[in-house]
Amino acid sequence: MYTLLDKYNSPEEIKDMSIEELNLLAKDIRSFLIDKVSKTGGHLASNLGVVELTISLFNVFDFSKDKIVWDVGHQSYVHKILTGRKKQFEKLRKYGGMSGFPKIMESSYDHFDTGHSSTSISAALGMARARDIMKKNHNVVAVIGDGALTGGMALEALNDAGFHKTKLIVILNDNQMSISKNVGGLSSYLSKLRIDPSYNKLKKDFNSTLERTTIGKNVVSSIEKLKGSIKQFVVPGMLFEEMGIKYLGPIDGHNIKEVSKMLSLAKNLEGPVLIHARTQKGKGYNFAEENPNKFHGIGPFDLASGELCVSGSGKNYSKTFGKELEDIAEKDDKVVAITAAMPDGTGLKGFSKKFPDRFFDVGIAEQHAVTLAAGMAKEGLKPVFAVYSTFLQRAYDQILHDVCIQKLPVVFAIDRAGIVGEDGETHQGVFDLSYLSHIPNITIVAPKSMEELKTLLRWALNQNSPVAIRYPRGCDIIDMESIETVKLGVWEVVSKGEKIAIIATGKMVQHSIMAKEKLIKMGINPLIINACFIKPIDKDLIAKLIEEGYKIITVEDNMVHGGLGTLVLEFANTMNYSSKITIMGFKDKFIPHGELGILYKLYHLDADSICEEVVKLY
Amino acid sequence: MYTLLDKYNSPEEIKDMSIEELNLLAKDIRSFLIDKVSKTGGHLASNLGVVELTISLFNVFDFSKDKIVWDVGHQSYVHKILTGRKKQFEKLRKYGGMSGFPKIMESSYDHFDTGHSSTSISAALGMARARDIMKKNHNVVAVIGDGALTGGMALEALNDAGFHKTKLIVILNDNQMSISKNVGGLSSYLSKLRIDPSYNKLKKDFNSTLERTTIGKNVVSSIEKLKGSIKQFVVPGMLFEEMGIKYLGPIDGHNIKEVSKMLSLAKNLEGPVLIHARTQKGKGYNFAEENPNKFHGIGPFDLASGELCVSGSGKNYSKTFGKELEDIAEKDDKVVAITAAMPDGTGLKGFSKKFPDRFFDVGIAEQHAVTLAAGMAKEGLKPVFAVYSTFLQRAYDQILHDVCIQKLPVVFAIDRAGIVGEDGETHQGVFDLSYLSHIPNITIVAPKSMEELKTLLRWALNQNSPVAIRYPRGCDIIDMESIETVKLGVWEVVSKGEKIAIIATGKMVQHSIMAKEKLIKMGINPLIINACFIKPIDKDLIAKLIEEGYKIITVEDNMVHGGLGTLVLEFANTMNYSSKITIMGFKDKFIPHGELGILYKLYHLDADSICEEVVKLY
Repeated sequence: MYTLLDKYNSPEEIKDMSIEELNLLAKDIRSFLIDKVSKTGGHLASNLGVVELTISLFNVFDFSKDKIVWDVGHQSYVHKILTGRKKQFEKLRKYGGMSGFPKIMESSYDHFDTGHSSTSISAALGMARARDIMKKNHNVVAVIGDGALTGGMALEALNDAGFHKTKLIVILNDNQMSISKNVGGLSSYLSKLRIDPSYNKLKKDFNSTLERTTIGKNVVSSIEKLKGSIKQFVVPGMLFEEMGIKYLGPIDGHNIKEVSKMLSLAKNLEGPVLIHARTQKGKGYNFAEENPNKFHGIGPFDLASGELCVSGSGKNYSKTFGKELEDIAEKDDKVVAITAAMPDGTGLKGFSKKFPDRFFDVGIAEQHAVTLAAGMAKEGLKPVFAVYSTFLQRAYDQILHDVCIQKLPVVFAIDRAGIVGEDGETHQGVFDLSYLSHIPNITIVAPKSMEELKTLLRWALNQNSPVAIRYPRGCDIIDMESIETVKLGVWEVVSKGEKIAIIATGKMVQHSIMAKEKLIKMGINPLIINACFIKPIDKDLIAKLIEEGYKIITVEDNMVHGGLGTLVLEFANTMNYSSKITIMGFKDKFIPHGELGILYKLYHLDADSICEEVVKLY
Repeated sequence: MYTLLDKYNSPEEIKDMSIEELNLLAKDIRSFLIDKVSKTGGHLASNLGVVELTISLFNVFDFSKDKIVWDVGHQSYVHKILTGRKKQFEKLRKYGGMSGFPKIMESSYDHFDTGHSSTSISAALGMARARDIMKKNHNVVAVIGDGALTGGMALEALNDAGFHKTKLIVILNDNQMSISKNVGGLSSYLSKLRIDPSYNKLKKDFNSTLERTTIGKNVVSSIEKLKGSIKQFVVPGMLFEEMGIKYLGPIDGHNIKEVSKMLSLAKNLEGPVLIHARTQKGKGYNFAEENPNKFHGIGPFDLASGELCVSGSGKNYSKTFGKELEDIAEKDDKVVAITAAMPDGTGLKGFSKKFPDRFFDVGIAEQHAVTLAAGMAKEGLKPVFAVYSTFLQRAYDQILHDVCIQKLPVVFAIDRAGIVGEDGETHQGVFDLSYLSHIPNITIVAPKSMEELKTLLRWALNQNSPVAIRYPRGCDIIDMESIETVKLGVWEVVSKGEKIAIIATGKMVQHSIMAKEKLIKMGINPLIINACFIKPIDKDLIAKLIEEGYKIITVEDNMVHGGLGTLVLEFANTMNYSSKITIMGFKDKFIPHGELGILYKLYHLDADSICEEVVKLY
């Protein structure tokens, strides 16, 4: 089926291929990627963008010795194909199957696990310094997108690399996109470089200015000599050069010959080098080229039409959030929205169009986003920072230090809380209750349904203090009405019952209701509570339950330690409660990738598992 | 005593003063600062460096309307003097007295609380955008040091500011220092700017090159015209200009006339502006000029000699750590040390001199530091990142995502864990157990004494997984021998006893011993356990205590929720333990500044408080 790819076995073969053969291989890989991802879903556009770049890397380097770190890592599919994992694309991102990110446990060719943005230069610099200290002499390469480059830690790493002159090759994979269109001063700067390859524009400026002078054309030759002395000021990439990084480029990232040549050059240079390669996200599949955003991370789709196989009702938590925020902002002009490069994923696209002056995409910069929100809140605005649970980890210090110490009314709309499924351990949102609930002055809420998200969002925007709202990926399993009125720290009894009280939060309320349906048939009727507040918890209700002799089970899609169950236990410990509390949640392990249903079952958080625990206690 | 300062009452008066008077005022303030800080201790050198800069800011702006954010904030003393807080310097940084940092609760002239580095541009940008959205027209100023500028979030903020062209004035207070000497590519870049004021060097280059050409001097005039077209490439500060920030400078930050002129100019420009002001840390006090590091944050000292009033034994946790690490590194050439701009504070100065090739100061860049360490560990080195507890908050995501998922053997030497005293709520290290202990794959230990720190450090470096060692500021109250052998998750019974078991960690073991001495006199003899492991806890020992009928008290200098006590409680909850557990620790409040002794007493963690709890349970 694939002329070259079918015969391909291992990376050494690449070095023996001609440029023509490598181009054929690229064509094969592109078809393979489109075909496979159309069946499994996955990251497509970013991988189509790095086919030639990856082949060129294997053409020049020997990654059985040389090291490579793929920033973010969702663009590592080509790398996986080239390093013996072709067949595993059948089970891409499925439980027990191949990860969508580099994994040191998966292949000796994967040298560093990634997932979050902007870590690659730091990791690669560490590896390069280890090499130098241990007197080895292999190469270390980091591949980073222009979007990821705006993350603060990438700039911290460049600053360090440039100063200490560690030998390191950084490839700037410049596709002018993060997941969405890039923003930021650095992005404008890169655009200028793209337009002015090899400082052609400057040359033209020189010449045209000179032509306008009285002395005229004779001067041109002396100007040529001038260039030497001012070259340091005018080479493109001066921003990098100023930081001590040698800049090469820009080059066409789809030209294997050109890229290989540049990589060979870089290999022989001392100190840190940055190669600026222009690539096109989605290259070679017209639907992905036209809409790289849609094809960034996508479910199974129809090859011929580019349409998703299952498109669903279109309702989900992110969209519900976005729509409700628009409605609120319509009437309250103090409401502003912030995203860190995720306007689509967080459901803010509509908001950004309706209220462009009150919408801020700060780039991949969660730390800055939080403190920016703090500044806005301090001056009387009502900022909402919409962000995935896993990415908000980046701003733990800013939440604590800039928002909570001053008790500023910032709303954190924490999307993708709980397990997210196919993206796996680097993306699971299972820590937020633990990293937020020990911070003084913050209120944490979680809606049991999309309807309730609307209610809680409105409530949050009327508090004069920090509020975090956590909600899961996707949509509801069971439609559930919202609580009618929200009162700080007051839980809702969703379903009356006896002997056993299930205190569940967020989506786990739905699992509990499903569990109850089964338990009823067994003659067991637990009481179900919607712990819509994780902080503060409803102490009065817990006290009442204890007085009335209920046994307590807590259920949360978060780490057990430091989450809801621990809070309930800590309070019960101050009461006269002699029974145990059953705390259901994730138990001190990272959660791998896989389908949500499988993971809930395996990690003992589906309806059946709740039944089991209730029966045990009964 | 002070010619002008004695008469000075409020900021408006500054605008009526002549430059001569302002210089006199500066002189008064400098004497005042040196005198006051010599008595109370505090941050001296950084404040001496910004006397004229602060006066100039008040000369040009009206901070009853205009806003200012002081990055880090320890350089806000002059600001405090000028805004009605002269008298409060008597109780600077004392419990109930004035904070050493800006505090919105302290004065309407303080517009944003700071403490950690690199937050000011984000906060000020948020305030500036709030101003624009609310159609107001005051000025917003951020003052940031060249050290703080290397923090990733400051660069994220510049990137955002430059792109959206928000009107904002950033003052780069360039003293070539963080707390220690600055590092990084950006720092080298700023040095170049300092040496080449107003691109004089470039002009010279132009001219000398031209003189060497055949056409000679006639060309000079045409070159002048050329400058227009290439100016964007050659102005100093091009790095900032490339990001979309207008650059002004460098100027002499001690020249009130010059600074005021530049500030007035910046006030009238649109979009973001960066003013590069060169200042000298410690200016005007010869001992501080010579040794700005020593006078960065200092205890009471003798004015005439510059010597500390109390110099102690010189032994403390930081030095003990540094010395031991040197001894270890002597024999193990895989051991490397990393600091984020704190070589002195963390005790690594000696290491940096002995092993310059194995020592890395990455600048104020905790995120990068952690992932750099991960890269090193991946390749077989044994990196130790020495960092204050409060600053490690910045790298929560990197610890989880880059170190712990891959279970890489990075050692976190967490200094200043627990309360730190005078620096107050932004610097208390009371969250680390809560933000670390829910992360899978990490081991957390805490020595009960300086001697034990050595043992645990050696042990940590022999594990093949991430280990965090937390230890307090300062030195021991009681000398205590180290445990002899360390076994993963095994606690030490420090003192046998009956009925009540005190499980204490770190310095709290010493408080517990002191409590026991008092309790013995009352006929109560509690058992005392050194919980040298916080993760994993010693389940066997807890189970044994429970079986033997002990009532349990846990003591930690950390937030109650998510810390040691919670871990013990969670385990006891799985056992047949019917009593309550008394969990002593900080209770969901930020801890203000003050003397350690006062704070321990107030927050119920001193020996007397432990006695009280034991008596209650007995």
